[in-house]
Amino acid sequence: MLYLEDFSVGQTFVSREHAVDAAAITAFAAAFDPQPFHLDDAAARGTLFGGLAASGWHTGAMVMRLMVETVPVAGGIIGSGLDELKWPHPVRPGDQLHVVAEVIEVRPSKSRPDQGWVKLRATTFNQAGTVVMVIQPNLIVPRKPGETA
Amino acid sequence: MLYLEDFSVGQTFVSREHAVDAAAITAFAAAFDPQPFHLDDAAARGTLFGGLAASGWHTGAMVMRLMVETVPVAGGIIGSGLDELKWPHPVRPGDQLHVVAEVIEVRPSKSRPDQGWVKLRATTFNQAGTVVMVIQPNLIVPRKPGETA
Repeated sequence: MLYLEDFSVGQTFVSREHAVDAAAITAFAAAFDPQPFHLDDAAARGTLFGGLAASGWHTGAMVMRLMVETVPVAGGIIGSGLDELKWPHPVRPGDQLHVVAEVIEVRPSKSRPDQGWVKLRATTFNQAGTVVMVIQPNLIVPRKPGETA
Repeated sequence: MLYLEDFSVGQTFVSREHAVDAAAITAFAAAFDPQPFHLDDAAARGTLFGGLAASGWHTGAMVMRLMVETVPVAGGIIGSGLDELKWPHPVRPGDQLHVVAEVIEVRPSKSRPDQGWVKLRATTFNQAGTVVMVIQPNLIVPRKPGETA
């Protein structure tokens, strides 16, 4: 497991590939984002998406799953928020997604000597190499025991 | 249904209340964010959360559901991304969430005369009035038929 001292700018983590299918897209949408373009391919054809596409929140949730498996932060992956979130391209049934997460900032906390912040830029690609999501999460990361200020 | 011409800065939409229970929190976490503080109350007590808390992506998904019910955008709620996302306070079993979405910008598209952008600031409160999530989505909104440039 990685503590604050184990992270450095430029360090990169690459997830496995995750397959997206139509049943997962429509099940998530029925629960959380019940709009025609996330629920039914025929209904989606007449919309901006031009066919069934995953809810952006579903994509975010799949990305979170991949990050939990890929970035072994001591204490878990806990974010206070995101500096950026973009969905530049739809996620479709049959897509294979993977996440590349790069460390862009490492910073000790001023108020909490036992922890600090790691900012990642996590880019999610489909099987064609097209970017489908970009996020910049700010993670709260513990300092190594015995190395706190 | 609302077109670009129907939105104005300061316009505000208030959702119903949505109840969060432990079963929903752990089911979402098992699928998308399998970390101890989202899966099991006893395991969560020794973590930064101090007890079971919803995945931030689960909160985002619940907020999306409330927004779909509350903001009747013609063509649906389609976002290109978020300018901001913050989770300032955990969401707990038993919480009652509601969303207040305020229009902060309305802007015709330069490249697409038939659509424009509406930026919202959507703040989610629990039953105590504590802010649990803030997002600023940029929505793609069609212009009223016959009123395009």
